[in-house]
Order: sequence, then structure tokens, then C-alpha cells
Amino acid sequence: MSISLNPQYSDIGKGFVTQYYALFDDPNQRNSLVNMYNNELSFMTFEGQQVQGATKILEKLQSLTFQKINRIITAVDSQPMFDGGVLINVLGRLQTDGDPPHDYTQTFILKPIGNSFFVQHDIFRLALHDMA
Amino acid sequence: MSISLNPQYSDIGKGFVTQYYALFDDPNQRNSLVNMYNNELSFMTFEGQQVQGATKILEKLQSLTFQKINRIITAVDSQPMFDGGVLINVLGRLQTDGDPPHDYTQTFILKPIGNSFFVQHDIFRLALHDMA
Repeated sequence: MSISLNPQYSDIGKGFVTQYYALFDDPNQRNSLVNMYNNELSFMTFEGQQVQGATKILEKLQSLTFQKINRIITAVDSQPMFDGGVLINVLGRLQTDGDPPHDYTQTFILKPIGNSFFVQHDIFRLALHDMA
Repeated sequence: MSISLNPQYSDIGKGFVTQYYALFDDPNQRNSLVNMYNNELSFMTFEGQQVQGATKILEKLQSLTFQKINRIITAVDSQPMFDGGVLINVLGRLQTDGDPPHDYTQTFILKPIGNSFFVQHDIFRLALHDMA
């Protein structure tokens, strides 16, 4: 096994999360997130619905119609992976349009490609039992 | 790249989570979880504190003194990984001893080894702002 842990994993995780949510939370830029995913090698599971590949991921992003997002990031925990990737787990609180706020969790795996990364895995879940 | 997605990833994820929490939630068996981790190649991040390797992970498990755990699993989302591993994200609600219940998230990556898996990555976070 070739071991190539990236010593910058924590900064990479925090920087990615900031960049990702800046685009996600702006309805005019949300669809551009598709550029972070691979045409075939990316998985997204959104509220239990799993899709693979950039085309299906873009369809999912386009289906999210909320305009106003209030987001609080509670924690961003990252770990280095042995292929040079980064595992990121986000815990936060999210309010969309007029809905009550909910806790949520989102997990990303960034896979190295050249001098950059793409999002290979993305899992999102709201804690819907948590009524405010 | 050799692609070997495990088609049983969803059952593996659910089965692992059931097995893991059965041991974790029993204070007499909790320390035996160390056998699921690798001596060197496993990372655990528990409430922001990161350790590597089974020895340090056992120390962390031994430091958890709560006896009674009420746990509700809200969602277990798994994805297959391209090395045959499984990414698992758990969202749940947890009450230890006399404390109020809190939402929590836990992410695991199971890495294949022979006909089995070990836990290569484990990230746990409580949503402590969520006061009951």
C-alpha cells in the first residue's frame, strides 16, 4: 500500500466546506457545484436518495428550489485518507425559506486528481424529528 | 484504477451499525470494539479529538464512563467505495446516563481486508446546542 497522507487535510476540509456552502446557499450559483463532481465516479445520497455521476447530481441540485438558507456550521471534522484524499464530516443547523431550523449532517470524501480534488462521496441528512 | 464496488454495501452498513452499537452501548463490552480497528491504519475523531491506531483508540473507549445509553438511529446512509470499502453515515439521537438527549452524527469507513473489514475512519460528534 502506498501511504500518502496529506498533512493539510484539516485546512483542506475547512476550505472546501466554506467554498461548497457559499455556492450551495446562493440559488444563482448552486448548479455550478456540479463541476466539483466526476462524470461517473461520484456518489451523492440526499435524504436517502442515491445517485451516481455528474448528470444525475446536477438534476438533484436543480430540484432544490429553496431560495433563502440560514446555515450554522457546528463542527467540521476532517481525517486524512491513505490515497491522499480527505474525509470530511459536517454537523450543522439549517433553515430553508420559512421552514423551522433542523440539525443536519453532511459527509464528503475528496479524491485527489492532479493538483486538485473532486467530490467522490457526498451524503446529506436532515434531523427532521428535531422540531423547533 | 481497479473498480470493485461491493453490491452489498447497504446491508453491510446496516449490519455493521447494529453490531457496533450493540457493543458500544454495553459498558461491559465497549472495550472489545478495539478489535474492529487496525493497530496503525485507523483514525478516530471523537468530539474533535483525533487519535490514530488501536492503542490510542482503546484509551479513548476506556475513558467513556457512561453506563446507560438510550440511542435512536434516525438514518444509516451507506455508499460503496471504489476499493471495495463502505462509507457509512449515521444520524441519531443519544442520551447517556442522566443527560438530556442530543442529536449526533457518526461516520465510518470500512476498509476490506481478506473476507472482512476493519474500521479505517471513525468520526463522532454530538449536536450539543440542541438542548432538550
